[in-house]
Amino acid sequence: MIQAGIFGVTGYTGYELVRILAQHPDVQVQFATSHSFAGKWLADVYPQAPHLPLIDEVDAPLEAVDVVFLCLPHAAAAATAVRALHAGCKVIDLSADFRLADSAVYAQWYGLEHPAPELLETAVYGLTEWAREQLPEADLVAVPGCYPTSVLLGLRPLLQRPLLAAKLPLTGPIIADSKSGVSGAGRQASDTTHFMNVADNFAPYKIGRAHRHLPEMEQVMHWWQPEAPPLIFSPHLLPVPRGILSTIYVTIADDWTLGDVAALYAEMYAGEPFVCLLPPGQIPTLAHVTHTNKCVIGLAQAGQTLIITSAIDNLIKGAAGQAVQDMNVVFGLDETTGLV
Amino acid sequence: MIQAGIFGVTGYTGYELVRILAQHPDVQVQFATSHSFAGKWLADVYPQAPHLPLIDEVDAPLEAVDVVFLCLPHAAAAATAVRALHAGCKVIDLSADFRLADSAVYAQWYGLEHPAPELLETAVYGLTEWAREQLPEADLVAVPGCYPTSVLLGLRPLLQRPLLAAKLPLTGPIIADSKSGVSGAGRQASDTTHFMNVADNFAPYKIGRAHRHLPEMEQVMHWWQPEAPPLIFSPHLLPVPRGILSTIYVTIADDWTLGDVAALYAEMYAGEPFVCLLPPGQIPTLAHVTHTNKCVIGLAQAGQTLIITSAIDNLIKGAAGQAVQDMNVVFGLDETTGLV
Amino acid sequence: MIQAGIFGVTGYTGYELVRILAQHPDVQVQFATSHSFAGKWLADVYPQAPHLPLIDEVDAPLEAVDVVFLCLPHAAAAATAVRALHAGCKVIDLSADFRLADSAVYAQWYGLEHPAPELLETAVYGLTEWAREQLPEADLVAVPGCYPTSVLLGLRPLLQRPLLAAKLPLTGPIIADSKSGVSGAGRQASDTTHFMNVADNFAPYKIGRAHRHLPEMEQVMHWWQPEAPPLIFSPHLLPVPRGILSTIYVTIADDWTLGDVAALYAEMYAGEPFVCLLPPGQIPTLAHVTHTNKCVIGLAQAGQTLIITSAIDNLIKGAAGQAVQDMNVVFGLDETTGLV
Amino acid sequence: MIQAGIFGVTGYTGYELVRILAQHPDVQVQFATSHSFAGKWLADVYPQAPHLPLIDEVDAPLEAVDVVFLCLPHAAAAATAVRALHAGCKVIDLSADFRLADSAVYAQWYGLEHPAPELLETAVYGLTEWAREQLPEADLVAVPGCYPTSVLLGLRPLLQRPLLAAKLPLTGPIIADSKSGVSGAGRQASDTTHFMNVADNFAPYKIGRAHRHLPEMEQVMHWWQPEAPPLIFSPHLLPVPRGILSTIYVTIADDWTLGDVAALYAEMYAGEPFVCLLPPGQIPTLAHVTHTNKCVIGLAQAGQTLIITSAIDNLIKGAAGQAVQDMNVVFGLDETTGLV
Repeated sequence: MIQAGIFGVTGYTGYELVRILAQHPDVQVQFATSHSFAGKWLADVYPQAPHLPLIDEVDAPLEAVDVVFLCLPHAAAAATAVRALHAGCKVIDLSADFRLADSAVYAQWYGLEHPAPELLETAVYGLTEWAREQLPEADLVAVPGCYPTSVLLGLRPLLQRPLLAAKLPLTGPIIADSKSGVSGAGRQASDTTHFMNVADNFAPYKIGRAHRHLPEMEQVMHWWQPEAPPLIFSPHLLPVPRGILSTIYVTIADDWTLGDVAALYAEMYAGEPFVCLLPPGQIPTLAHVTHTNKCVIGLAQAGQTLIITSAIDNLIKGAAGQAVQDMNVVFGLDETTGLV
Repeated sequence: MIQAGIFGVTGYTGYELVRILAQHPDVQVQFATSHSFAGKWLADVYPQAPHLPLIDEVDAPLEAVDVVFLCLPHAAAAATAVRALHAGCKVIDLSADFRLADSAVYAQWYGLEHPAPELLETAVYGLTEWAREQLPEADLVAVPGCYPTSVLLGLRPLLQRPLLAAKLPLTGPIIADSKSGVSGAGRQASDTTHFMNVADNFAPYKIGRAHRHLPEMEQVMHWWQPEAPPLIFSPHLLPVPRGILSTIYVTIADDWTLGDVAALYAEMYAGEPFVCLLPPGQIPTLAHVTHTNKCVIGLAQAGQTLIITSAIDNLIKGAAGQAVQDMNVVFGLDETTGLV
Repeated sequence: MIQAGIFGVTGYTGYELVRILAQHPDVQVQFATSHSFAGKWLADVYPQAPHLPLIDEVDAPLEAVDVVFLCLPHAAAAATAVRALHAGCKVIDLSADFRLADSAVYAQWYGLEHPAPELLETAVYGLTEWAREQLPEADLVAVPGCYPTSVLLGLRPLLQRPLLAAKLPLTGPIIADSKSGVSGAGRQASDTTHFMNVADNFAPYKIGRAHRHLPEMEQVMHWWQPEAPPLIFSPHLLPVPRGILSTIYVTIADDWTLGDVAALYAEMYAGEPFVCLLPPGQIPTLAHVTHTNKCVIGLAQAGQTLIITSAIDNLIKGAAGQAVQDMNVVFGLDETTGLV
Repeated sequence: MIQAGIFGVTGYTGYELVRILAQHPDVQVQFATSHSFAGKWLADVYPQAPHLPLIDEVDAPLEAVDVVFLCLPHAAAAATAVRALHAGCKVIDLSADFRLADSAVYAQWYGLEHPAPELLETAVYGLTEWAREQLPEADLVAVPGCYPTSVLLGLRPLLQRPLLAAKLPLTGPIIADSKSGVSGAGRQASDTTHFMNVADNFAPYKIGRAHRHLPEMEQVMHWWQPEAPPLIFSPHLLPVPRGILSTIYVTIADDWTLGDVAALYAEMYAGEPFVCLLPPGQIPTLAHVTHTNKCVIGLAQAGQTLIITSAIDNLIKGAAGQAVQDMNVVFGLDETTGLV
């Protein structure tokens, strides 16, 4: 039985993690921390929550657990990661702190010096489908952001260098027009999440090259394909609780057909338990993925523009579900345990 | 041309007032105040707002206006009312400060001594359909609460003493099961108004005899019928932006029929521009009333229980619209001016 | 392993049943029928559905199953029940066909002669918490309607004759003001379920004594308490996908306190796995129950009126979940199997 | 006073037209037709509708009106247009019948021979801001589709040939990622518009080069700029009643800056009553435009990709509002009459 602790459990991803781990046959949650609700119960925050006491982070018994999940704000997560690693725990970090390999890029986008740059080299970027071979050795896993998960899984087959070698390279830029439900904005009440501002509305924000998930996506795109074109990323806020759908536009080489592309995707995602390719002509919707750990992908073509539609549940495959998927690989369990 | 000022314009009722007055041929808005946004423009808060500068309350030129509308929190409204009356303005107060005639009741429900008890006697309770004769003399009008408007218009014909004289009295209690859209909770971001807590949800709150609108309703019921039974009032939060629908249950005398009741309502509301009785068998929905100043009422019977359904737009007939309707009567204009 | 068949699987309750049974360790779904989609797959109707082929009802291999679930329209269900019972299957019927013990009442409310009146005596009304002792012997279970489940569980402790004996009887009528999500209206596209008519709206319908669930509720109320007062039942359509919340008003005897009532409820529901009493002062919302088999109940008092709030997920505890709960008891399994 | 008739008034655009014309000081609605509801009243379909009798199309007194608005399905509209023109009426057609100048393109996309190809030459494509000079002479106006209105107003300044002459041409393709509310799908109940399929969901459909509005947009783009690049158009269904927001991606010449582009837009739209440019850094949302005849446009840049966000109310600027705007120009009225 794997003993687990959760830091920052009262946010949406923390609570989703509790829900998933409650169904996981090999994990026991030993403690859960909350800055604002320490001393209370998780059910004081979420009416359906199990009877889980909330403790202060400083009281967390790190020695009693094998793994900790960090659902903390950035910067706070790094500090806790240091402590947990020192105590011998595996760390699955759902914050942004270890996603960017370059501390200078982190400083630029997050506005502060990286709190633990010495750990950046050891962190594994936990896009599970891609990181499967690195994860078993990992002590520190950086769970990808929600938007990056939807966009990167949508792009990955295209950016595989060897497969592309025989064809002309992609020409850019790649455009990801993404739409997210409100849970992505967090549990904190604000004008942005006020029902009156969300319902009956739809709002682009930080479009172009302004959102913090952009450098994360470009970093991985370059890992996969050093000559990858730049990314243009336009997030939009949907009046729904959960789900992300990215509509991605890529210019492909003149001699490519949709069949070529579909074959590429089919080959790469054959046997994947959580990545589902739709048949040509079908397009995913949020209803395909909400409340699941799936990423459902559709492909369409318009001239030499490939249109990839990629849908996930932002709280599951885009956060807590992928965190558990990563943990399963780290601990040598079947990757789907607790997730189907 | 009536010169008007609006205090507290950035709340939902303040903004709705601006929208209505912009269409009103006889009113010009001279100033609008905001505590939090002074120095900015109303369009900084509401993207469709006209170009209206927001000033600090202390800079409001009371001498330049004939009437002020107070969209302020309770207690703050009373203080401003004193100043405005002193400056010779008519005051249309949308807060709760002058709705309760008894300062002891106010102290009990609002938790503070009434800031201007000397004004309570002069304030007219502005349920327009009932207050039409008092309003022309009024200097200070207390616009009814949103829930009370829907419930009181639904009950009024039943509680008319002379008409009831020939019949057995009502037996109690009267039950008002009311459902309101989120704008009733105000513009302030909070857990209550967070999209994630409202969407896909429905929540009763302060049911029974716990909501501040209860004493307001019972006060008016007793004005109309000293032996009126007690009221049970159960508000619920609907996942919609606006609208209130109250389902009201009243035990009527054994020898009453639905036809008797319908005749009573038809007689009382004949010619009313904003109260619409549906034919027997029809029931109002929010879609009958949103974005209008109407109160639409349906009647049904189940044994000796009369079921009155009464729907309004909480921001219009339940606040800003009724405020303008009151102002029209105060200034001798056609009551519907600017409202149809 | 219990072999099961589902008739009428493409409606919302049928699909919910598939979801639940997929998690049930002791049940295997052998076949699923659909009138409109025979020859296709369930995933053609619901994007997240498992790969389940849909067959025509006439091809259903009744001999291969131990139990059938009927998610058919009324009348159609009774005919299939006859065939299935004849083939030796247990029948769990989610339609209205066997809920009313009196075929004359059925004829009056459903507008046709009962198709199988000879079975009415043997059918067990499967409100599990109440029917636990009859179910093990049952061949035919009538799963209660969604509204009745919420109202009857809310009322049951009050209507227990022996417990009430020492107190004054209830005086009537009992009022159930119920609000339901759209899935209750079924998968058939209609004006009633058009997004444009539901979103931003809220609509009472068939209020008073007009809805078919009324006789079902009064029948059970009289089983429990022959002198039970009449019921007034007002359903309303909420702009949410799922969930029912009933606000129930009961006049209680003068010498009763909320404490007396709470003790009554606590005693009756002690140890119930799916009925949760909230502490005094707390009120359930839909968020307490959606996607669960729970019924969460809150109690409040206003004078001698008791206000019971009772929330369920209409598709689970109000249909498919309770059907499985019943099946568990019929087959001697732990009642919660597959449901937590 | 202009006498007007409305054909097909019970669809969403027909009803919106009634609402607008009711506020129009120079227009009187003489008749309104409905295929399905002839003999009834508009209020039987829309609870807030005025008391307007619905007549059968064959009974429409064409001789009594100066102008007819056609809110009919395609093909049906053309047949009625022929009759109305013959009777001497001006025709404002909100269907697709006269939007495509080439009957072969019509046949290809709408699947039938054009019913009145002889009228195609005389029809004016009524994108008011562009058609202002042709409209006064027009007998037949084709009101643009909803998506085309949002996309074309967003692109127009870029595609003006003379202004572009001094710069490098656009390189393609142009991508319009559009999101529409449900009213765009019409009043007919269907799986697509069922609340259960729309709420909490978000669905791309007919993406790439598959939607009927594509040839309409490319036609106009080529009128403006013969070398315009191809368009890729991806519509998505939003869970909101109304509004369209298009996020448009255009590759601009290397030596262009956002300032150049902004100046181009500012020059073209200076003085436009219904096209609003937001300052750099601001992005429109649906809340900027719903219930108005406005098109609000924002500009952003990411490398050499220009991102144009363009929002309209699909039923107003995208249909009934623009129809009235066109009519105002046809009849020599101030263009904003009845629309502000």
